[in-house]
Amino acid sequence: MDGTILKEEFLYSQIAERFETQIENNILKTGDKLLSLRALSKEQGISISTAFKAYIELENKGFIEARAKSGYFVRYNPSKIPKPLDKPETETSFENVGVDEILRMVHKTMSQEGVVKLSQAVPSAELIPVAKLSKAMMEAIRKSPTNCTGYEEIQGNLTLRKQVAKHAFGWNGNITENDVVTTQGCMEALVFCLKAVTEAGDTVAIDSPTYFGIFNAMKSLGLKVLEIPTDPETGANLEYLEKAIEKIPVKACLFVTNFANPLGVIMPDHRKKQLVELLAKKQIPLIEDDIYGEMYFGKTRPKTCKSFDKEGLVMLCSSVSKTLAPGYRVGWCIPGKFIDKVISLKLTHSVSSATPTQAAIGLFFETGRYDLHMRKMRKALHTSCLRYIQAISDYFPKETKVSRPQGGYVLWIEMNKKVNGFELFQQALKQNISISPGQIFSTDARFTNYIRISFGTPYNEEIRISIQKLGKLVEGMS
Amino acid sequence: MDGTILKEEFLYSQIAERFETQIENNILKTGDKLLSLRALSKEQGISISTAFKAYIELENKGFIEARAKSGYFVRYNPSKIPKPLDKPETETSFENVGVDEILRMVHKTMSQEGVVKLSQAVPSAELIPVAKLSKAMMEAIRKSPTNCTGYEEIQGNLTLRKQVAKHAFGWNGNITENDVVTTQGCMEALVFCLKAVTEAGDTVAIDSPTYFGIFNAMKSLGLKVLEIPTDPETGANLEYLEKAIEKIPVKACLFVTNFANPLGVIMPDHRKKQLVELLAKKQIPLIEDDIYGEMYFGKTRPKTCKSFDKEGLVMLCSSVSKTLAPGYRVGWCIPGKFIDKVISLKLTHSVSSATPTQAAIGLFFETGRYDLHMRKMRKALHTSCLRYIQAISDYFPKETKVSRPQGGYVLWIEMNKKVNGFELFQQALKQNISISPGQIFSTDARFTNYIRISFGTPYNEEIRISIQKLGKLVEGMS
Repeated sequence: MDGTILKEEFLYSQIAERFETQIENNILKTGDKLLSLRALSKEQGISISTAFKAYIELENKGFIEARAKSGYFVRYNPSKIPKPLDKPETETSFENVGVDEILRMVHKTMSQEGVVKLSQAVPSAELIPVAKLSKAMMEAIRKSPTNCTGYEEIQGNLTLRKQVAKHAFGWNGNITENDVVTTQGCMEALVFCLKAVTEAGDTVAIDSPTYFGIFNAMKSLGLKVLEIPTDPETGANLEYLEKAIEKIPVKACLFVTNFANPLGVIMPDHRKKQLVELLAKKQIPLIEDDIYGEMYFGKTRPKTCKSFDKEGLVMLCSSVSKTLAPGYRVGWCIPGKFIDKVISLKLTHSVSSATPTQAAIGLFFETGRYDLHMRKMRKALHTSCLRYIQAISDYFPKETKVSRPQGGYVLWIEMNKKVNGFELFQQALKQNISISPGQIFSTDARFTNYIRISFGTPYNEEIRISIQKLGKLVEGMS
Repeated sequence: MDGTILKEEFLYSQIAERFETQIENNILKTGDKLLSLRALSKEQGISISTAFKAYIELENKGFIEARAKSGYFVRYNPSKIPKPLDKPETETSFENVGVDEILRMVHKTMSQEGVVKLSQAVPSAELIPVAKLSKAMMEAIRKSPTNCTGYEEIQGNLTLRKQVAKHAFGWNGNITENDVVTTQGCMEALVFCLKAVTEAGDTVAIDSPTYFGIFNAMKSLGLKVLEIPTDPETGANLEYLEKAIEKIPVKACLFVTNFANPLGVIMPDHRKKQLVELLAKKQIPLIEDDIYGEMYFGKTRPKTCKSFDKEGLVMLCSSVSKTLAPGYRVGWCIPGKFIDKVISLKLTHSVSSATPTQAAIGLFFETGRYDLHMRKMRKALHTSCLRYIQAISDYFPKETKVSRPQGGYVLWIEMNKKVNGFELFQQALKQNISISPGQIFSTDARFTNYIRISFGTPYNEEIRISIQKLGKLVEGMS
């Protein structure tokens, strides 16, 4: 019989321990009613006496209390217990820190409260028509026979695909809904396109500087990165690229051709055409990240490389994460002749994309609300861009250089060579301002005296003060 | 001047052509108003006269019409034009057809209307509390300061993670919200876990027969598949596995330990413990797919391997796709000591999961609606399971064998060796019934005389007739 007793001993304290963890972590909250002894015994397949012993142990430790005729309730409140001592903070030196480490630190600041986030290239809530979008979500759910609970078609929501095809008109595209595959944001689109045309070990050419997410995704797919210098006025250096592909077996290119992040440059039409023709000669696929394309400050929507593509070699990727709702994770790609491969990858890795969010965005496009919103947003961002540049020129040292984006969200700032972007990031964070240090925009942290700031939040007094503080810090470091 | 004229000629017919495509594809519908000449010229950066020529061409071809003082409207209706002749149908022979080909055909039937879908292991709409779930979605959106438009935390929605931790109690788990990472359905969870512990070229052991999605995902990651025979009463053959890992460098295992698809078997607790200990000795990670775990017909929720895991080697994956809403694409994993790697993969490949769907499911759990729903659903599925088995015994040849699942959704049916599952699939489809042929549950199509049928739709007269028809087909082939 000793075995049985031991086993029971083990069982009830094990159960008590699991309750303790849940109470300590506030999963079970003060005042929550616990399962009855009978229900607990049934759920766990244990005897009522074992369940009783578990509760007694918890009661003895002060975690729960028995109330006459009502059962057991949580009484412990972890937030009222004094916190343990903090570990002493170790300051990270800004020298010899890798890109990965810096990235992790920048990411940490993203969900931190009370920080002025000049680091995030996303629209601030005040630029998003949240109420109208929520209305579109409810309409979409109501219109669906299963309230959007069922699987969506693998290729993606039909209304959304038709709308993407319709909007392609703006960049000179001649496509139909059959050419479009929806994805979980632009990032998933880029990953599927990369996987469709490369294998681990292959080399892919990208802009430099570029958005860190791009080379991180490549690294995680085992790809080698070839950084092509990007000119602040004409985009990726095609002459450099042409020489490179003569010497190196480049398997694909991935360029942001409109408002490249962080430079904000548009590749002019004739260069886009030249790029497409250059790659067609070698049959090298081009993944074109057009996520910022709709956010132009000029009169017309810039064209895309896709519009010059005759052989289906260009795979265009985009989303509404920069223009409407990052949290909806609605993106798409137009993968040209690689579409079957992309659909098969989507089926294999995701089965399908979320039904309600796609349906909501599809409807938001269809009813013309998206166009209306974008007209307002472009104006707001352009104004914001100009005000931020003025503030930088007011508060930063005279030698500072700033990009002149023709669209998008971000400013790329070049400072005195003595100023270290990562050091500035750390100092600014102490004053509750987050920026993106230049180091994270290349694989070898080469842009040390640069920072990127986003103007996604309309200019206001808090922003003015933050830029003023940043300017003082830069002055101190110059 | 000839050059300019040529260019204009080219431009307007190019624009007209793009409109034609949109009209042919019903993206622009009969009666839709086109942009005004001024607006078109501005949007496309062309002269008003070029815009005018484009519209004239479209009018001449009968695609659009000018209405006095109103502008241009679409008049063409592609659906009224007689359809081109169908291509003669070629019947696929059921011999020498690969698993991929069969899979593609089965997938095609999934969105086909008017087909009785005995192939899909998902809950039918009548089992889902769609109205309550939509209400949870609206509540979640209302409660969020940004109406769920902003990025969710990378690790996932906090309420949902807490609820997953709380529900882990049911399978003996002792975890907190910090151990959970949310994903886009269970499939993304499995892919991230596989990527976290393997590299292309590695070997991973899986159940056999198993869900085709699993070995497809592996193939796409460049992994080698080692199929471990699964016993219909005790699950994966651990003795076979033990011998295999002595000889082959198995990098990870991926098993469905509760109600394995298609067998419906629970691995008994002592075998789960044995499996965990066996793998711990060799430090081999176990990816545990527990997607069906909550759908038990017995009195208590079966335990998981994760509950026996002392070293953080077990990575549990699950979702609400089988229990609540496949279209929401809400899943999660509890990746043990590999959690940092999984979070980093999630950041790199998806940035974050969709905000509104996670928030809705989190709230649906928190308010206790999920538990209520599951109690009803388990009963309904159990009843459905018994009725389907009875119908099969009524209508199929006497020699037919059927699995006795203790939970989940599916029946695995073994027929006379002369019956070919894929041939049966094709014949059934002609009668508008879709089933899953046994061939797609192994990499080498070895289960030729098996089929899987799902009892996710409550038994009714239509189902009875379908099973009766299937029985007749099997009889004819035996």
